[in-house]
Amino acid sequence: MLVQMPSECVIGVDLGGTKLLAGAVDADLRVHHRAMRPAQAPAQGAVLARVEEVVREAMDAVEAEVAAVGLGIPCLIDLRTGVAVSSPNLGVLAGAPVRDLMAERLGVPVYVDNDANAALLAEARAGAARGVSDAVLLTVGTGVGGALLLDGRLYRGSQGAAGELGHMVIEADGPRCQGACPNHGCLEAMASGTALAREARAAATAEPDSALGLAAAAGREVTGALVTDLAHDGDAVSIAVLELIGTRLGVGIASLVNIFNPEVVIVGGGVMAAGELLLEPARREMALRALPPSRDRVKVVATRFGAESGMLGAAVLALDGLAGA
Amino acid sequence: MLVQMPSECVIGVDLGGTKLLAGAVDADLRVHHRAMRPAQAPAQGAVLARVEEVVREAMDAVEAEVAAVGLGIPCLIDLRTGVAVSSPNLGVLAGAPVRDLMAERLGVPVYVDNDANAALLAEARAGAARGVSDAVLLTVGTGVGGALLLDGRLYRGSQGAAGELGHMVIEADGPRCQGACPNHGCLEAMASGTALAREARAAATAEPDSALGLAAAAGREVTGALVTDLAHDGDAVSIAVLELIGTRLGVGIASLVNIFNPEVVIVGGGVMAAGELLLEPARREMALRALPPSRDRVKVVATRFGAESGMLGAAVLALDGLAGA
Repeated sequence: MLVQMPSECVIGVDLGGTKLLAGAVDADLRVHHRAMRPAQAPAQGAVLARVEEVVREAMDAVEAEVAAVGLGIPCLIDLRTGVAVSSPNLGVLAGAPVRDLMAERLGVPVYVDNDANAALLAEARAGAARGVSDAVLLTVGTGVGGALLLDGRLYRGSQGAAGELGHMVIEADGPRCQGACPNHGCLEAMASGTALAREARAAATAEPDSALGLAAAAGREVTGALVTDLAHDGDAVSIAVLELIGTRLGVGIASLVNIFNPEVVIVGGGVMAAGELLLEPARREMALRALPPSRDRVKVVATRFGAESGMLGAAVLALDGLAGA
Repeated sequence: MLVQMPSECVIGVDLGGTKLLAGAVDADLRVHHRAMRPAQAPAQGAVLARVEEVVREAMDAVEAEVAAVGLGIPCLIDLRTGVAVSSPNLGVLAGAPVRDLMAERLGVPVYVDNDANAALLAEARAGAARGVSDAVLLTVGTGVGGALLLDGRLYRGSQGAAGELGHMVIEADGPRCQGACPNHGCLEAMASGTALAREARAAATAEPDSALGLAAAAGREVTGALVTDLAHDGDAVSIAVLELIGTRLGVGIASLVNIFNPEVVIVGGGVMAAGELLLEPARREMALRALPPSRDRVKVVATRFGAESGMLGAAVLALDGLAGA
C-alpha cells in the first residue's frame, strides 16, 4: 500500500536507557521515517544535542511540516514545568528543564512525559489497550518499568512518581535490587533482564552440557539475548530459565490483577523478545494466584507496538498537545 | 457540648465479617445513636432481617427524619444494580440484590458499597485522607482488605473488584492464604489477624516463660487481642510478634507506595488495636524499601474513625446519594 505523505507530522522520540529512537508520525500513527542513536552520553548537553540530532534527521526526511515534538524519557517529570525531576537510569538529565531546552533548540512546541507512560499511551490509542479503561503496562528490560491506565486516564500519583511496578516486592528476603532502589526481592530484582542474565549464568554453570553451558564455556557473554536465542532454538535449560523469570513475573502480575482488576496487563521491553516463552508461564502463575472475577477477566498480552511503543506514544503526546488535550 | 438534634439524618450501616454496626448520622457526620448486632447468620434472609432490625433501632432512637440508609458490606458490589456479586467472607449474600431488598424492607432509598470503600470514603470526607487526592486504605482484621482513592475518586477497576490489597504477594513461597484466595504469601496470609494469632501461638510455644507463653499454658486462647493486651502490658515476646507482623505490613506498604505515590496510607481494622506497636515497624520497613520521592512524601497513619470508619462511610454514601453525587 502506498502511504501518502500527510501535510503535517509530529516527531515522537523515545529516549531509553540504551537506545534513542525518533519517528516522523502522522495523525493516524503511521511512521514515515525512523532515526536511531545510542542514548548514553557523558553529559546533559550531549544527551540533548543527540536528541536534537535525531529529531532533525527525522524532520529532514519528511516533506511534511513538523508541528511538534513529543519526548518520552526515563525520568520522573514535573508535567507542569517539563523538568526532569529525577532519573535512576539517566542521571545526567536530573534537574534539566527538558521541555523548554528542547523547544528552544528545535523551534517547535515540545511535550515531555515518562517513557513508560508514553508506551502505554500508544497502546491505549491504537494497540493492546485500545478501547480499554483499566490497563497495566510492564516494561521488562534492564530494569522493570510500569505505567497505569485507570478509569481511562494515565495515573501519576501525588508527585508524578506512581507506576513503579518494578519495585513491588514479590519475595521479601530476595536479592537486593539495583541502582537507586534500596528494596529486596522486588520485581526488578527478580524478573528483569538483569535477573534473567544472573539466572542464566547460574544455569550455565549448573548445566555445562546444555547449549547455554557450552556457549558460556566457549566464552560467549551470557546475556538475556543469548538465553532467548538459545531457547528459541530449543535449548531446554534456556527455556527453563525463561520459565523461571516468567513465573516470577506472573507472581507480580497476580498482585497487579488483585490490586487493579484491569482488563489487560501488557508486557513490553527488551526481554519480551522471548515472547510466549516468557508470557505463557507468567499467565499460568497469575491464574494460580489471582482472585476471581479479576483473574478470569484479565488478558495478559504483549505490547502491539513492541520496541516502538515508546516512540509512538511520544508522538501521541505531541498530537494530543497540539490538539489542546 | 450539647449536640442539637438535626431535622434530618441518615443511617450508616457497617456489615463486617463479625459485627453489624448502625449509626444515625447527620450531615456533619455527627453520630446521634449507635446500634450493634452480631453479623453472622445462617441464611441470606436472616442477615437482611438483622440489618433491618439494627436500622429500625437507630431510626426509632432519633427524632429526626431518616431520609436514606447507606450500607457497607464485605462484598463485590455491582454499583449499577446494587447486587452483591460475590463475597469471600459473607457468602450467604452472594447474588442478593441487597440494595433493592433493603429499600423494600425499609421504605427509604438505600445505597450500597463495599465496606472498605465506605471506610475510605469516611476518612476522605473528614478523617485521615481529608483534602487528599491519592490515598490507600488497608483494613487489617481477620483478613486484609483495601481501598483506593486515586485522583480524588474511589478506584474500583473494570468490574468493581479492584483494591484487593490483602492479596498482593510479599513472599512468593509463603503460606497458603485463607478462604477463597488460592495465593501463597500474600499480605493476608502473612500479616492479617489470622497470621498474628498463628505467629503468636508459635511464639508462646517457643517462649514458654514469657507472659504470652504462660497465658497459653494456663489455657487462654492465643488470639490477636491477647497478644495486643500483653504487648501493651510490656511483654517483650508479644511486642516482638507485633513487630514481625508490622514489618511484613511495611513490606506491602512499600509496594503500595511505589505503585501509587500516595499522600497517605491509612491502616484500620481490628488489629490496629495494637496502634504504634504495629505501625512503627511498618513505617520503618517501608522507609527501608520504597523509592524516593514517594517514600519521603507519604504518611503512614491510623484511621481517624477506627472501628466506626465503615459505618460513617456508609452514612456518607447515603448523604451523597441523596445529594445526587
